[in-house]
Amino acid sequence: MTDLKKLALEYHSQPRPGKISINVTKPTATAKDLALAYSPGVAEPVREIAKDPELAYSYTTKGNLVAVISNGTAILGLGDLGALASKPVMEGKGVLFKRFAGVDVFDIEVNTKDPKAFIETVKNIACTFGGINLEDIKAPECFEIEEKLIELCDIPVFHDDQHGTAIVTAAGMLNALEIAGKTIEQAKIVCLGAGAAATSCMKLLVSIGAKKENIYMVDRQGVIHSGRNDLNPFKALFANDTDKRTLADALKDADVFVGLSGPNLLSADGLKSMASNPIVFACSNPDPEISPELAHATRSDVIMATGRSDYPNQVNNVLGFPFIFRGALDVRATAINEEMKIAAAYALRDLAKQPVPKEVCEAYGVDSLSFGREYIIPKPTDARLITIVSDAVAKAAIDSGVATLPYPKNYPLQSVDDVFNK
Amino acid sequence: MTDLKKLALEYHSQPRPGKISINVTKPTATAKDLALAYSPGVAEPVREIAKDPELAYSYTTKGNLVAVISNGTAILGLGDLGALASKPVMEGKGVLFKRFAGVDVFDIEVNTKDPKAFIETVKNIACTFGGINLEDIKAPECFEIEEKLIELCDIPVFHDDQHGTAIVTAAGMLNALEIAGKTIEQAKIVCLGAGAAATSCMKLLVSIGAKKENIYMVDRQGVIHSGRNDLNPFKALFANDTDKRTLADALKDADVFVGLSGPNLLSADGLKSMASNPIVFACSNPDPEISPELAHATRSDVIMATGRSDYPNQVNNVLGFPFIFRGALDVRATAINEEMKIAAAYALRDLAKQPVPKEVCEAYGVDSLSFGREYIIPKPTDARLITIVSDAVAKAAIDSGVATLPYPKNYPLQSVDDVFNK
Repeated sequence: MTDLKKLALEYHSQPRPGKISINVTKPTATAKDLALAYSPGVAEPVREIAKDPELAYSYTTKGNLVAVISNGTAILGLGDLGALASKPVMEGKGVLFKRFAGVDVFDIEVNTKDPKAFIETVKNIACTFGGINLEDIKAPECFEIEEKLIELCDIPVFHDDQHGTAIVTAAGMLNALEIAGKTIEQAKIVCLGAGAAATSCMKLLVSIGAKKENIYMVDRQGVIHSGRNDLNPFKALFANDTDKRTLADALKDADVFVGLSGPNLLSADGLKSMASNPIVFACSNPDPEISPELAHATRSDVIMATGRSDYPNQVNNVLGFPFIFRGALDVRATAINEEMKIAAAYALRDLAKQPVPKEVCEAYGVDSLSFGREYIIPKPTDARLITIVSDAVAKAAIDSGVATLPYPKNYPLQSVDDVFNK
Repeated sequence: MTDLKKLALEYHSQPRPGKISINVTKPTATAKDLALAYSPGVAEPVREIAKDPELAYSYTTKGNLVAVISNGTAILGLGDLGALASKPVMEGKGVLFKRFAGVDVFDIEVNTKDPKAFIETVKNIACTFGGINLEDIKAPECFEIEEKLIELCDIPVFHDDQHGTAIVTAAGMLNALEIAGKTIEQAKIVCLGAGAAATSCMKLLVSIGAKKENIYMVDRQGVIHSGRNDLNPFKALFANDTDKRTLADALKDADVFVGLSGPNLLSADGLKSMASNPIVFACSNPDPEISPELAHATRSDVIMATGRSDYPNQVNNVLGFPFIFRGALDVRATAINEEMKIAAAYALRDLAKQPVPKEVCEAYGVDSLSFGREYIIPKPTDARLITIVSDAVAKAAIDSGVATLPYPKNYPLQSVDDVFNK
């Protein structure tokens, strides 16, 4: 057994199974307390909510409660292992939500692969929650599921594998381009992989200025071009009217490589053929499309990000989802729309340019961190994230008309503790 | 606004909305911790559970996690106010589960009145949990829902409004009969009300010795007799081949009155017509079928229980469900069967005959409590409940063949703390 395996299994099982428990937040010591928590006192908030459903946000946990929901059809990079096997990941996602933004999470594992049954199930339980985070659901079903649930639910529904990845990628990409002396509008972009994360990433890059004709998406059959007739509607959106057919064709003179595919698929020759100051986001996990060692040995001018915490520039969803939901919940947004996603990306981009607090550097065992090739994205342990990202998302929700509460009095938040002191 | 209303709304909204939050039980301070809680470490328990689903009990909260599920069609005594309005009650039920037996609860509000859609929804999310407590679902749909879910799920499914009430009623009834010098086999029983709780109560009384021909169930149309053709199958089970037609007819010389109906439906004249040492369980809440004051003024030999905490002998479900699930979860029972329900009832009956600890008396502001007319059921704050009831239920699960784990090493539990130290 590897060390990681031993430690991970111990962590999950000792001293008791799992990673979460329920905490009762109100007094329950006396019979009087219990008469308020339950019968007869509890009838009062019930009657109030029956008269005005919005009061569920005043008298229950709904407003701080997110469902993290999966059917286990695309667990991490492990594939379809079933709903039950996804439970440690969904609990873990809940742990991150709580740790980083004070959001309470019920993980719900839905044991069906049928999108219609999945949608119906989630729709039926949605009123329990203030928001829904879909997770580890395979493409293309995840598109239909998210689209339909957004339509059916009056609370934010967000598929993090798509949009979380896109938001953090976009933030890092804008900074990498700035360092490379290029603009998103001109950048020639190769995207290896054409799944949920890849199409969502490219969509968001287009939203913030990338030109569709400059994007070459590559799947197992090669470049996705307008002559292909094997494309699902999600891939077809990125069909490029081009003569390029292979990954090698696409890479020639490209400014950007985004890998959301598998290990070691970007060769040294491919990297060599890219334009000056090539930007490589090799996000396959745990083994990137090209190892940072090989990339730096091949080109000294490469600007590199991966999905790994043990290299600089980790594209890590935890920079996004906790704060995106925090901001959305705090102004009771009815959706997480494009404006809010872009606001989150810009906030992350801007934060990376600020001086980095000593604690953050210390936590990473370095003396200092400053904006540059080795630091284009904030670190997850940066306590300013909750202030800056949640604030930006809340403001964007208000400006785009999906907020139902005004800008919170105690904004910007200073810490997770602020969440509990509201 | 009444005092209770003001206090209850404050309790539910201050300092933050609702009564629960999520507690992270594992370390999350460092990047190393997070690499175990989430990617990459979390892949290890995922792989193990994919190979052996039973390991979900070792690596996730499943084994201590109960879903409290309602569609809000019969909330407390308030009726059909919808799924969302039931949320304070379901959270409150979770609070009681945690407070009394250390069971973690996700409350799930299911927004459909269609039994088939409800069943499908709960079936699809069931793998998330170690047990399911159905709550506040109206009859007769609740019967179909429970029956079908028991069939479809491999975890315990328990409709507390039916069985919890039945178990605590049965415990108190056996003691009341002993004090009255009567036996359950001979007792003539009038049951006013023919809903879910009533039919379940009468079924359990039959399981422990009552004769069906001695039971007179009374609904709005009068005595349920074999000549009636307006009976649903659940009521028809108790159709008595009798000439009695009215509540007054049924009460004459009856030994027991069980009220699961509405306020003030048992008159002084009705009570007068009952046999010696009449047993009156007037469980309508908050206003009983007959007030204890009127009952005692009418008959000095009455043995009386209500659903209220401010009179002696409260029939309170909290004496049952936390410990029943505790015992079932601890031996990983696949069901909560009749044997386990009866074991819980007998354990409660026996506990009421034991000397009562000083703390319990003090909590109720009395010098002492001892088995007798004013003390036929234990008090909810009695710390021995978790020892005695959970233990009895776990043993019954093993003896009846529905347990999948052996008798726990640390049994009998001494306190809720024991639950967390396992």
